[in-house]
Amino acid sequence: MWLRTSCDLTFDITVPTPFILMLRPRSGAQQWIAHEEYSLSPSVPVFEFTDNYGNLCQRLVAPPGIFSIHTTADVITADNVDQAPGAPFVEIQNLPDTVLSYLLPSRYCESEKFSEMASLITLGQQLGYNQVSAIETWLRNTIRYEPGSSDIPISAVEVNSRQSGVCRDLSHLGIALCRSLSIPARLVVGYRYNLEPMDLHAWFEAYVAGRWYTFDATQSDLKGGYVAIGYGRDAADVAVYNQFGPPVYPMKQSVEVQLIEKEEI
Amino acid sequence: MWLRTSCDLTFDITVPTPFILMLRPRSGAQQWIAHEEYSLSPSVPVFEFTDNYGNLCQRLVAPPGIFSIHTTADVITADNVDQAPGAPFVEIQNLPDTVLSYLLPSRYCESEKFSEMASLITLGQQLGYNQVSAIETWLRNTIRYEPGSSDIPISAVEVNSRQSGVCRDLSHLGIALCRSLSIPARLVVGYRYNLEPMDLHAWFEAYVAGRWYTFDATQSDLKGGYVAIGYGRDAADVAVYNQFGPPVYPMKQSVEVQLIEKEEI
Amino acid sequence: MWLRTSCDLTFDITVPTPFILMLRPRSGAQQWIAHEEYSLSPSVPVFEFTDNYGNLCQRLVAPPGIFSIHTTADVITADNVDQAPGAPFVEIQNLPDTVLSYLLPSRYCESEKFSEMASLITLGQQLGYNQVSAIETWLRNTIRYEPGSSDIPISAVEVNSRQSGVCRDLSHLGIALCRSLSIPARLVVGYRYNLEPMDLHAWFEAYVAGRWYTFDATQSDLKGGYVAIGYGRDAADVAVYNQFGPPVYPMKQSVEVQLIEKEEI
Amino acid sequence: MWLRTSCDLTFDITVPTPFILMLRPRSGAQQWIAHEEYSLSPSVPVFEFTDNYGNLCQRLVAPPGIFSIHTTADVITADNVDQAPGAPFVEIQNLPDTVLSYLLPSRYCESEKFSEMASLITLGQQLGYNQVSAIETWLRNTIRYEPGSSDIPISAVEVNSRQSGVCRDLSHLGIALCRSLSIPARLVVGYRYNLEPMDLHAWFEAYVAGRWYTFDATQSDLKGGYVAIGYGRDAADVAVYNQFGPPVYPMKQSVEVQLIEKEEI
Repeated sequence: MWLRTSCDLTFDITVPTPFILMLRPRSGAQQWIAHEEYSLSPSVPVFEFTDNYGNLCQRLVAPPGIFSIHTTADVITADNVDQAPGAPFVEIQNLPDTVLSYLLPSRYCESEKFSEMASLITLGQQLGYNQVSAIETWLRNTIRYEPGSSDIPISAVEVNSRQSGVCRDLSHLGIALCRSLSIPARLVVGYRYNLEPMDLHAWFEAYVAGRWYTFDATQSDLKGGYVAIGYGRDAADVAVYNQFGPPVYPMKQSVEVQLIEKEEI
Repeated sequence: MWLRTSCDLTFDITVPTPFILMLRPRSGAQQWIAHEEYSLSPSVPVFEFTDNYGNLCQRLVAPPGIFSIHTTADVITADNVDQAPGAPFVEIQNLPDTVLSYLLPSRYCESEKFSEMASLITLGQQLGYNQVSAIETWLRNTIRYEPGSSDIPISAVEVNSRQSGVCRDLSHLGIALCRSLSIPARLVVGYRYNLEPMDLHAWFEAYVAGRWYTFDATQSDLKGGYVAIGYGRDAADVAVYNQFGPPVYPMKQSVEVQLIEKEEI
Repeated sequence: MWLRTSCDLTFDITVPTPFILMLRPRSGAQQWIAHEEYSLSPSVPVFEFTDNYGNLCQRLVAPPGIFSIHTTADVITADNVDQAPGAPFVEIQNLPDTVLSYLLPSRYCESEKFSEMASLITLGQQLGYNQVSAIETWLRNTIRYEPGSSDIPISAVEVNSRQSGVCRDLSHLGIALCRSLSIPARLVVGYRYNLEPMDLHAWFEAYVAGRWYTFDATQSDLKGGYVAIGYGRDAADVAVYNQFGPPVYPMKQSVEVQLIEKEEI
Repeated sequence: MWLRTSCDLTFDITVPTPFILMLRPRSGAQQWIAHEEYSLSPSVPVFEFTDNYGNLCQRLVAPPGIFSIHTTADVITADNVDQAPGAPFVEIQNLPDTVLSYLLPSRYCESEKFSEMASLITLGQQLGYNQVSAIETWLRNTIRYEPGSSDIPISAVEVNSRQSGVCRDLSHLGIALCRSLSIPARLVVGYRYNLEPMDLHAWFEAYVAGRWYTFDATQSDLKGGYVAIGYGRDAADVAVYNQFGPPVYPMKQSVEVQLIEKEEI
């Protein structure tokens, strides 16, 4: 399907403020960026680099005054999310080197604390995809999804104790549970068609049978319509914006995802 | 200045043909990509990756039939190219690790064969920027620039023997001469405003005084209006497209660069 | 000075157990590895790779039975640690891309929670080296250093609440405080001459004035004699060994660091 | 088998001379470095980094006077080289991103000039391993192996025209032929047990069926006893030493490879 995504952020800046943005989606296995706009007002010098996770990041210093960021993209993305019940667990020794860091505990995914819990949740499941699926189902049934309930990322331990959270929080717990079973897992931040209420979204991916699969405990079933912006170990690595110095908050943040008709050119 | 660049390629494919494209410019020190379009017709699955030089590359298999690639971008780029007469040579031991590979000979820049010649050309020059400047001037005065005269890259040795070449060829010789003086140098492929005749362009950069500087022996003086698409050791690393299997040639290749008016949003 | 370091680990393995080891020191700015031994008994196939932080890591599967790892190295290391009172803070926009990830919160360094505390500790200090020095002094005077008191890494928040910890714990708190001031900081694991009691050691580095500087709150003053094995955001990234599957603990872990006389060859 | 390798280089330096060395072997799929010595006399500051191909490189400035480098390693390496007749060609679209650069022409492997020749040599062969095997056999029967005949690398085109060369030269031609068939190929520099006469050695690897396989046209059959030091696109990337400034030549270069008995510890 063709989606038109947009994200607009507006800040009221008082002192020159360094930012690192992560708002330029890449074309990847499941999406093609056919059209993209990225504008800053006022226009300032920007340096782009690729981080350790392959994300395109933009560095800039926002000048005092109103500073706004406008991005939009037309993306072709899969109508359905690949699913693979029965896809096997990959033994640690057979994982690619580049995947190993997704086994480690990270800021918001204290995976070393979830071994026992993960074993219980996945009891009797075939190793691999089915374990992750059981984790996703457990999250969906157990942790109350409360979109918009918080701005600050909380860690898997806190999510488990609150028993509720935003999309990012549920993903953090899902990731921690996967890693505790030695299944590499990572956070994805992006857009999702028909999300209610519309906002930036977060979900997670797990590595089984030699590739990454999408999981999303906030949705009743796995449909397509995902557009990934960034990947990382958790929300510490994947922030749509990181800002340094005295904190500034967006005066306005608006996100839209529309289905569009696009003819082949 | 604001430029609108476009590159359209059309191929007549007979058997499924793997391609690696390098047509998505990054935002960098001297340019900001505000708007970008990249479409393929017919639409096919594409995987994007970042190569060793930081370029965004797209992998795909073109199906039999007419296959066309359309890219366009609105870019803000510097009105003038930074120049720095007197900027000093960086001692090898002080170069960043990532720059070292630009000192080595490469496919089209047999730098190990140009030490003597480079010494003569730069005789009496202060080490660093001025040496590269002398090389650029020498190329401009010595090697006949014949745009469109060839499609196949030729190496610095061949360029020097023919005493003429396209933009890429002059750059290859410039790069080989710089490297033979232990100045890191690399090829840049991209667009240039007001190029005559309009086409994709190639120029080179040399690393002095802790950063890369732009040089272009095909132009009588260094003005701005450059939009970089890709960087590499030479044309072997930076091909707008690499195609595998039985060779196919573009039926149509059109490149445009227009000055546009853009208001701050 | 010349040091001979050794680390021996012995495990009693019951089921085939995948390990990732990080026990091969690299030669770097402050140390040269002149002689190195690394043996496994029984001998098993090993794959070596370089992680995101530049560490050499070894992957293997330990077979059931007694499995032991023996490493030793002769290293020339600086007699004194570089110190640079007054060395300035590097503005975020001027940091190298590769250093940026050391500004983010990580598993054991919840830097986003320490802004206020870091401001208080460094009140009146010149921005940069002196701030880190003030943090080091504060740690030394405030957090009780209790070597051997724990095996499991604890996070900066927990260290601050307990007011005591092992070398790694003090470093985690130091790192979190630095990052909260937008000073990149990282954990180093390695050896230290004359450490009391002898064991593997951990300290931290902060990035000011364009390079990394060593800090160690466990020692009354900064002497030389450090040999680094691994670098990372915190202990989650830098484990001398990571083991997957049912937990195994070393039956024996012995570490030695001797001063040796070495003649120039 | 257990091998003890050593390489000693001695230079007579007149002006401070920057070097990049590549003399520290890594442990990899087919070898384990159990013991290693690396000493410089006089001792100078060295910085170690990992290049784009994963090689450990050492940067230093040699001071005027006699400068010598001594390295030795005890290595366990495979008794036999893996061979896989029938192992299939990997379609370009299925190659890992990291392997793609080994398809491109490089300084000493002008692969774009060998398509026709490679087709003839491999006529009737099954795509993949068997093609590379046919290339190796053709090299063995056609290009006279003359160890010690030259010091300066020559390119595949020159090797083909001379019809003779050293190990590196034969490998360059083998690599160019493989790449012209869209088979990734790379140069390996290292040691080989029982090489006659003893010296540093070079061979090549080709990527088929999802992994790299060893080929060596200088030997009548593929036995084991290889110890790799460095990998790259060709000799431009893999030099045991690269030296900058006025050329210096080793006064002495001695290489030894002995079979040793090693007991399990």
